[in-house]
Amino acid sequence: MTTITINEVGLRDGLQSLQVIMPTAAKRRWIDAAYGAGVRHMEVASFVSARLLPQMADAREVVAHALTYPDLQVTVLAPNLRGARDALESGAHRIVAPVSVSTAHSLANVRRTPVEMVEELGRMCQLRTEMGLHGVQVVAGMSVAFGCTRQGEVPLADLCALTRQVIEAGCDQVSLGDTTGYANPGQVATVLQAVREIAGDRLKAAHFHDTRGLALANSLVAVQQGIGELDASLAGLGGCPFAPGASGNTVTEDLVFMLQSMGYDTGIDLPALIETRQVLSEALPGEPLYGFIARAGLPLNFANTHRHA
Amino acid sequence: MTTITINEVGLRDGLQSLQVIMPTAAKRRWIDAAYGAGVRHMEVASFVSARLLPQMADAREVVAHALTYPDLQVTVLAPNLRGARDALESGAHRIVAPVSVSTAHSLANVRRTPVEMVEELGRMCQLRTEMGLHGVQVVAGMSVAFGCTRQGEVPLADLCALTRQVIEAGCDQVSLGDTTGYANPGQVATVLQAVREIAGDRLKAAHFHDTRGLALANSLVAVQQGIGELDASLAGLGGCPFAPGASGNTVTEDLVFMLQSMGYDTGIDLPALIETRQVLSEALPGEPLYGFIARAGLPLNFANTHRHA
Repeated sequence: MTTITINEVGLRDGLQSLQVIMPTAAKRRWIDAAYGAGVRHMEVASFVSARLLPQMADAREVVAHALTYPDLQVTVLAPNLRGARDALESGAHRIVAPVSVSTAHSLANVRRTPVEMVEELGRMCQLRTEMGLHGVQVVAGMSVAFGCTRQGEVPLADLCALTRQVIEAGCDQVSLGDTTGYANPGQVATVLQAVREIAGDRLKAAHFHDTRGLALANSLVAVQQGIGELDASLAGLGGCPFAPGASGNTVTEDLVFMLQSMGYDTGIDLPALIETRQVLSEALPGEPLYGFIARAGLPLNFANTHRHA
Repeated sequence: MTTITINEVGLRDGLQSLQVIMPTAAKRRWIDAAYGAGVRHMEVASFVSARLLPQMADAREVVAHALTYPDLQVTVLAPNLRGARDALESGAHRIVAPVSVSTAHSLANVRRTPVEMVEELGRMCQLRTEMGLHGVQVVAGMSVAFGCTRQGEVPLADLCALTRQVIEAGCDQVSLGDTTGYANPGQVATVLQAVREIAGDRLKAAHFHDTRGLALANSLVAVQQGIGELDASLAGLGGCPFAPGASGNTVTEDLVFMLQSMGYDTGIDLPALIETRQVLSEALPGEPLYGFIARAGLPLNFANTHRHA
């Protein structure tokens, strides 16, 4: 049975676009519930200015809570060196630095050009080493890798060139993000093959958005292409501001349903995972919860294979 | 460029589960609009008792209107010999006979066991020949081919045995239907390969439901397996009565978006197709319209390749 790692990013990518702030206690309950359902990989916070993103003001506390589970891999996002220092001090196991392939998106997102962001990534890797935290993995999160709502097409040559640069800058892992929900399954295959040529085993993960309904089809192709880790968000939390009314990230429950139905091992207890939506209903009243399997129910013959819960 | 045939089944499978009856004039407008957007294959009606299914009482009129377009392939459903006679007299080009692999579903759906339905299919093929309508194609629509909400798992051996029987009974084409939204992409590959062994080129089409969010991923795998025709319904019309709140058929617009993004030729003008949803908003007020692409909008770099419109 092939194992696929599900990285629950709802606490970071799901929450960051919401106006309403989820209380720290609710974030703890979410982590507890997800862990209870067998989730062992979570991206729990973003180390950014609390003034710019009040939702993430409790990043240090949230990471500390996640770290109380010894076998939970705790990932955080850090857009710059300052955030990376905070992240390293927090004890997180893995830091994602967002590197946009589109200059327009990069400037809007991190106020740096892609080349400047690669330099910052290099400083982040160096800081990690200086602090003696060799076990902490630095991930280049390649944003808008499949297309950009500002510039349209993102040339594959640009993505490949930038991938070479982030590897030279010292990152341990590369993750490809369809930030805008532009990717299609044929493109996912082509792009992953091209980036694999450059990044080899450093190409670990893919991150899709369901804005145009293709998150599961794209995730399927990623798995067919040997990707062993997929980002997803409980209830698809994280609507894209560029596509009102459309859902955001890949829905974790639906992704787990697809993969487990196909015989992949995610380690997750799906009925228990579906119950964790309750945390969101309570903490984010009125927020739409996306996803098919929670509404439709499991098939009669569904085999709930899971290791942890 | 590989061509994939999109068979719009909303007028049949989409409408048949609705309580509100769509007026014949609105059905005509739907056909006109879909044709205008480049749709050249439609399943427009079901020849069943008007008492049992008042929605389909105007089947003959609807077929007659569809036949005013000389290059539109007009398919209808007929659950029995009587319906097949009406369908043959109507001038439809293709008749689908629903053959359930599950006895429980077959009895509920057509009040015949699978074996009895195969016999009826044989009589339908014979009638077609007796009436000299050799050009009319008879399709065995294998229902619940991927699982059944009444019996759970549907053994592949049962599907294979029944496929042999429908071919012996004289059907021209075989279509596999995931009536219940139980199919997963791995299973779709396995099942299509097994049925292909038996049916060869007669295996033409697949029919998925999006009840559990996998319609596009399943359609993708079907195309990867060489299936050249896919059923879909505008706005995903056709909620499954066994899964309240979940959407029904594959959403035509989303399927066309996926396939055209991947470089397949569907012949459909996607922006024009999205506009045809207006016919449903007007004729079926309050009915939920599903689908992602209509809400999110096309990517900036989308190439709207189409032949007809």
